Amino acid sequence: MQTRSIKSLAKEAALVGALDKAGILLGGAAALALIKGVAASADEKHDAAWLAQIAPTRSAALDRQLIALKNTLRIAMDRGDEKNVAPARLAALRSELRRQSLDGFLVPLADEHQGEYVARRARRLAWLTGFTGSAGIAIVLAERAAIFVDGRYTLQAAAQVDGTLYERHHLTEVPPDRWLAEHLRSGLRLGYDPWLHTEDGRARYLKACKAAGADLIARAANPLDAVWHDQPPPPLAPIVPHALEFAGRAADEKQAEIAALIKTAKADAAILSAPDSIAWLLNVRGGDVACTPLPHGFAIVGADSSVALFVDPRKISPDLRGHLGHQVSLAAPDGFGPALDALGALRRAVLIDPQGAPCWAVDRLTMAGATIMRGADPCARPKACKNAIELDGTRAAHRRDGAALVRFLAWLERAAAKGRLKESAAADRLLTERQKNDRFMGPSFETISGAGPNGAIVHYRVTPATDRRLEPGMLYLLDSGGQYLDGTTDVTRTIAVGKPSPEQRDRFTRVLKGHIALALARFPSGTSGSQLDALARQHLWQAGLDFDHGTGHGVGSYLGVHEGPQRISKLPNTVALEPGMIVSNEPGYYKTGAFGIRIENLVVVQALEGLKGTERPMRGFETLTLVPIDRRLVDTALMSADELAWLNTYHAMVRERLSPLLKGTPEAMRYLRRATLALKPPKKSTRAPKRRRDKR
Amino acid sequence: MQTRSIKSLAKEAALVGALDKAGILLGGAAALALIKGVAASADEKHDAAWLAQIAPTRSAALDRQLIALKNTLRIAMDRGDEKNVAPARLAALRSELRRQSLDGFLVPLADEHQGEYVARRARRLAWLTGFTGSAGIAIVLAERAAIFVDGRYTLQAAAQVDGTLYERHHLTEVPPDRWLAEHLRSGLRLGYDPWLHTEDGRARYLKACKAAGADLIARAANPLDAVWHDQPPPPLAPIVPHALEFAGRAADEKQAEIAALIKTAKADAAILSAPDSIAWLLNVRGGDVACTPLPHGFAIVGADSSVALFVDPRKISPDLRGHLGHQVSLAAPDGFGPALDALGALRRAVLIDPQGAPCWAVDRLTMAGATIMRGADPCARPKACKNAIELDGTRAAHRRDGAALVRFLAWLERAAAKGRLKESAAADRLLTERQKNDRFMGPSFETISGAGPNGAIVHYRVTPATDRRLEPGMLYLLDSGGQYLDGTTDVTRTIAVGKPSPEQRDRFTRVLKGHIALALARFPSGTSGSQLDALARQHLWQAGLDFDHGTGHGVGSYLGVHEGPQRISKLPNTVALEPGMIVSNEPGYYKTGAFGIRIENLVVVQALEGLKGTERPMRGFETLTLVPIDRRLVDTALMSADELAWLNTYHAMVRERLSPLLKGTPEAMRYLRRATLALKPPKKSTRAPKRRRDKR
Repeated sequence: MQTRSIKSLAKEAALVGALDKAGILLGGAAALALIKGVAASADEKHDAAWLAQIAPTRSAALDRQLIALKNTLRIAMDRGDEKNVAPARLAALRSELRRQSLDGFLVPLADEHQGEYVARRARRLAWLTGFTGSAGIAIVLAERAAIFVDGRYTLQAAAQVDGTLYERHHLTEVPPDRWLAEHLRSGLRLGYDPWLHTEDGRARYLKACKAAGADLIARAANPLDAVWHDQPPPPLAPIVPHALEFAGRAADEKQAEIAALIKTAKADAAILSAPDSIAWLLNVRGGDVACTPLPHGFAIVGADSSVALFVDPRKISPDLRGHLGHQVSLAAPDGFGPALDALGALRRAVLIDPQGAPCWAVDRLTMAGATIMRGADPCARPKACKNAIELDGTRAAHRRDGAALVRFLAWLERAAAKGRLKESAAADRLLTERQKNDRFMGPSFETISGAGPNGAIVHYRVTPATDRRLEPGMLYLLDSGGQYLDGTTDVTRTIAVGKPSPEQRDRFTRVLKGHIALALARFPSGTSGSQLDALARQHLWQAGLDFDHGTGHGVGSYLGVHEGPQRISKLPNTVALEPGMIVSNEPGYYKTGAFGIRIENLVVVQALEGLKGTERPMRGFETLTLVPIDRRLVDTALMSADELAWLNTYHAMVRERLSPLLKGTPEAMRYLRRATLALKPPKKSTRAPKRRRDKR
Repeated sequence: MQTRSIKSLAKEAALVGALDKAGILLGGAAALALIKGVAASADEKHDAAWLAQIAPTRSAALDRQLIALKNTLRIAMDRGDEKNVAPARLAALRSELRRQSLDGFLVPLADEHQGEYVARRARRLAWLTGFTGSAGIAIVLAERAAIFVDGRYTLQAAAQVDGTLYERHHLTEVPPDRWLAEHLRSGLRLGYDPWLHTEDGRARYLKACKAAGADLIARAANPLDAVWHDQPPPPLAPIVPHALEFAGRAADEKQAEIAALIKTAKADAAILSAPDSIAWLLNVRGGDVACTPLPHGFAIVGADSSVALFVDPRKISPDLRGHLGHQVSLAAPDGFGPALDALGALRRAVLIDPQGAPCWAVDRLTMAGATIMRGADPCARPKACKNAIELDGTRAAHRRDGAALVRFLAWLERAAAKGRLKESAAADRLLTERQKNDRFMGPSFETISGAGPNGAIVHYRVTPATDRRLEPGMLYLLDSGGQYLDGTTDVTRTIAVGKPSPEQRDRFTRVLKGHIALALARFPSGTSGSQLDALARQHLWQAGLDFDHGTGHGVGSYLGVHEGPQRISKLPNTVALEPGMIVSNEPGYYKTGAFGIRIENLVVVQALEGLKGTERPMRGFETLTLVPIDRRLVDTALMSADELAWLNTYHAMVRERLSPLLKGTPEAMRYLRRATLALKPPKKSTRAPKRRRDKR
C-alpha cells in the first residue's frame, strides 16, 4: 500500500507541474482533484465534459494524457488489496474509535443514497472486511466484530471475510440488532454514520441499544474514513442533459407536478436523496456509479416548484446550467445542511422519506425547528409511470436489444455445439453484440451467464474460478440488460445445450405457463403486484415446486434496472400497478447442483380500454422484450390451447419486429425464423385419455 | 317510556316479594338482578343453570314463572324506541357532557371486547342515534354531531338516523379523525370511554386532537350510561363446559401451550380480552351475545400456566368451577383493575394486543409500572389451527347441516315454483330444517335470503319492507350457517328460480371457476390468504368483472363464524394458512338491481403429504361443506376438463355423505340424486373450432 502511494504521488506531482505549465483554466492541483473524482465515478462516455472543465481548448495529446491518467487512477482504485490487510484495518478503526471515545461502530454497505450500486469512495464494508457482495453490514465492537449477510452471500462471505476477525452471520437468522442486544453492555457508546442509515433503519439499532442500556452516537465524520488513507474521493462524473426526445416531458412540467404533490401532502418542501428521482425530475443523467446513469446529490423541492440542487459544481457544465433552467438553483454539497437549517428557521413542513433519506437530514431538520412530514419520495410514483414517449423509446430500445440477443443466440448455437465455450466468453460476446447497437450506453447490470449447476445460483456472477463450459445436456441461463439512451432492458433466457431431459422440459414448461399466466392477466385498477404473484407460481406449486425470488421488479427509463415502488412478489405491497409502469415478469425454477431456469420479459401496465362488457377500469400487460423463447424446452402436452396461442403469437411478433434489424446478418435472420416457428398442439392420443394434465 | 318503567317496577316488586316468601337461595332482589342479566344476554339453552343459582330445587311452576319473566324482560329490552327519542337523548348526553366539563364524546359501536356482536347493554350507538348496523361511530360535539358508517350501511344510516341531528358520513370518504381535526378547536376537551377503544384505535383520535390543540379525555364511567336510564345490565348467560369430545384437547394442555408462547415472547403474563380466546383456552362456552357462544369476561394468563378469570360469579355454577380446574382462579369483574395494578407493582412484562384489548387496560398497566409488550393475542393462532377431533366434529356438523340444506332445497324447488314464496318464509323454513338436527344450538349469523335484486346487496337482511317473492327468472342467494356443539357452519348457494339467462349462467360459471381454482390450489407452507386471493377472481377479471368483499374468512369451532387471524383477501395479510385452519371459499358477483351470485364452501387447510416429486412442504384445501351447487347455472362450455372433474367429484362426495342422513325423507333423497348427477362436457362443435374460452 505504502509503496503504491509513494509511486502515485510522484506521478501526480509531475502532472501537476505539467498542467500548471500549460496555463489552463484549473490549477494543476485542482485539475488533478477533478480527474481523481472522475476516476472515482463510473463514467466512460463523457470525457469531453470534464476535460472542458480543465480548459475549453486543449491539445489532443493533453486529452490523451489526462484520459490515460484517469484510467490509471481508476485501475489503481479497483486493484485488489494485498493479502491480510484486514487485521491492520480493523485495528486502525478500533484505535480511531477509542480516540473518539466510542466502543463500537456500524459499517453498513449503503451509501448516502441507499442505492443498489455505491461509488468507490463508499465501499467501506469491502475495504474493512474484504466482503464485496451487494448487501450486508459489519459491526465492530472493542472485543468482537461480526458481519451479517443474506442467504445469497453466505458462501461468498465465508470465502472473503477472515473468520478469526469477524463472526459471520446470516442476516435473518442472527439479525444485527439482536446480536447487538446480546453483546452491548450498559453504558457503552455505539457509533454510526447518520449519512449511511435511514430513519427507519436506525430505529432498530436504537431499540437494541436502549434494551442494552447503551447509547447510539452519531458521527457525521465517519471514523472509518479517518483511517482509510487512500480512500477515493466522491465521484465527479459530469451531469449531462437527458434530451426531451427521450424524457418525453419537460422538467418544469415535472417540477410543477411534484410541487402539487407536496402541496397535497400539506408540506412546504420535500427532500430528495435518491439520485434517480433527481435525474428524473431535472431531465439529467450522471455516471457516478456502475450500470445506472445516476448523478449523486441531494435536492430540496419547494411547493413553489423551485429546486435547490446540491452537487459538486465541477459536475456541472455551463451548457447543463442552461438546460436546468431558472427554477433550479445550484449549491455545493456543503450548502445542504445550512439549507435544511433555513427550512427549520422558517418553521417549514418538510416531506422526507424515512425509508430512503439519511437520518442525518431528518435530525438536522428537526433540530432546526422544521415539522417533519414522513412519506414516500414524491417522485417515485410519477417516475414509475412512464409517459408515451418514454414507452416508445423503450419499445425501440427493446427492438435493438432483441436484435443483439438474436445475433448472439445465432452465434451461440454454433459456438456452444463444440462443448468448449465458456460462460465468460459467452457474456463477452453478448456485450460485443449490444455494443453494436445505437444509443447503447453500457450494461444495466453485471450479466449472469450460468451453465448447468451455475445456472441454479440465482445471483451467480462468473469468475475465473467458476467459469464453466457449456456442455451438451446442460441448460444455459443468461440474464442481462442494456442501458440505452431511450430505455433500459433486462431479459433472461434459458437455452438448452444439446438435447434437454424430460425433467428439464417439464420444469421449463411450468415456468413458462406461469410467465404466460402473468402476461395474459387482466386485473382491476388498484391491484398490486403482490396480488398477482401466485399466478406466476401456480403451475410450479401444483408439482410441489417454487422459486425463492420475486416475480417482478420495476424498471426505469435509462435509469435503474431495479426501481420502485411497484413490484410483483410474495411480500405484501399495496402499490397499485398503474398504466405506464414497467415491471419484469420473471418466474424461475432452480435445482441446486443441476440446472436453473428463468424466463424474463419486461412488460408495461396498460389500461384496457373498450373491453366488451367490462364493469370496471381494467389493467393488463404489454410485453416489451423481443427475444425467442427456446422452443425445444417446451412440452406442448402440458400447455393449454390458450398458452400455446400466446407463445406462437409472441414469436410471430418477435419475428416481425426484429426482422428489419437483422437484414445485414443472414445467420441471425435464419436463426430468428427457425426459433419463432409456431408450435403445434400434440395429437390427442386415444391410448392415454387420462394423460397427466396440470390441475390449474 | 316512563309508563313502561312504572309498570315493570310494579311487576318486579310483586315477584321480589314472592321469591322472598319462597325462602330460596338468592334474595328476591338478587334473583331479579340475575334474571335481568340473563335476559340481557342471548342465552336460550341454559335456563337450568341460572335457575339453579336461584335455588337448587324449585317447583315447575316457579321455573315457568321465572323463565316467563326473563322472556318478558328480554322482549322489553328489544322493543323498538318510540318515535323521536333521538333529540332528547342527544340533549341529555350533551347536558351530561357539560356537567363533566367535556366538549364532546366518542360513541363507537364496539364494546369492551371489540367483537362482531355486542350485548344489549353495549348498544349505545343504536340507543343514541337509532342506527342498528354492525359497524360505525358517532361523535357528539357541543354544536354538531356526526355518524360515520361504511358503504354497506349508508342507505340504512340515512333511513335510521335523523339528519337534522347528525351529519351522516361515509367512514372512508370522511374519516372521523379528519372530521374531528376540522371541527375541534384548541383547548377543547373530547371525551372517550377507554373500555371501548383499542390502543391502535385511540391513536388516530389522539393524533387528530393533537393536531387541533384539543385534549382527549378518558372517562371510564361512560357519560352516556349516566343518561341511559333503562340501560340493560351486563349479560349474565351461564358459562357452560365445552366437552372434551368436542374441544379435542384438555384445557390445561392449552394453558401450558399459551404459557410457553408467553415465555417465548419474554413476557410474564398476557391479557386476554377476546371472549372467544377465553372460551377456547378454558374449554367453556357462554351465551352473552347473539349467534356466537361467547362468555364475556377478561383473563390474565401467566407464564406459569395460571389463569385468572374475571367474570360475574353468577355466571359460574359449582359444576363449572370443577370443570375449570385448580389452575384457574375466579374473581369478579371489578377485580381486574387491581390485578393489573399487582402486575405493575411486581414490574412484570405483560403481553397485550394493541388492536384488540381496551386501551383502559394498557393505561392501567402502564400507570402501575408494568412493561407493556405489544403483540397479537397468543390464543389467536393456536385456536385457528383446529385439532383432529375438532375437525372430525366439524365434518360431522357439516353432514348434518348439508342434510338440512338438501331438505330445504327439495322443499324450495316445489315451494318456489308457484312464484309466491317470500324471502322471509324461505329463511324460516331453513331454520326449521336446521332445528331438526342433533347438536344444533342456533344460527351462526343472521341468514341472508335475497331474491333477484336483493341478492345483489352483499349484506342484505330481509325486513318486512324489503321481503321479496322468489319469481321465475330470478336468482335466489342464500347465505346461512349453524352453530353446532361440534362445529360452526357457513354456506352460500345461489339457486336459479325458473330458467336462468345466459348472462346469469356466464357469471355463475366464472364465480364457480374461481371457487374451484381456490379449492384445487396447492401452495408452499408459509403462503398467506392474500397471495391466493387472485386465483378466485381471475376468471371474473378476464371479463372486466370483480366482487367487493373478501374471498375467505376464518371460522371457529362452535365459536365465531368470523375469526382471525387468517383470511383470503385483497388486503395484505402475512398470516400463513396453516394445517387445521378453516376458511371460507366464497367468491361472488353482484349486478346491482338485478341479481347476486355467491358460492361459499368452508375448507380446511391440509398438509399435502406424499406428493410425488415435491421439493417443499405443500398445503392444500379439503372442502367441508356438503351442499349441491346448482347445475342449471353451470355453462359447461366455459369449464375446463379439470374444473368439470372437480364439480362432478364434489357432487359424488356430497351424495355419498348425505344419503345416509336422508333415508327418512324420500323427497330430499330424490332431490339429492338429481342435483348431484355428473355434468358432461359439451360436444366439441366442428362449426366453431375457435369457441370462446376463458383466457386463463
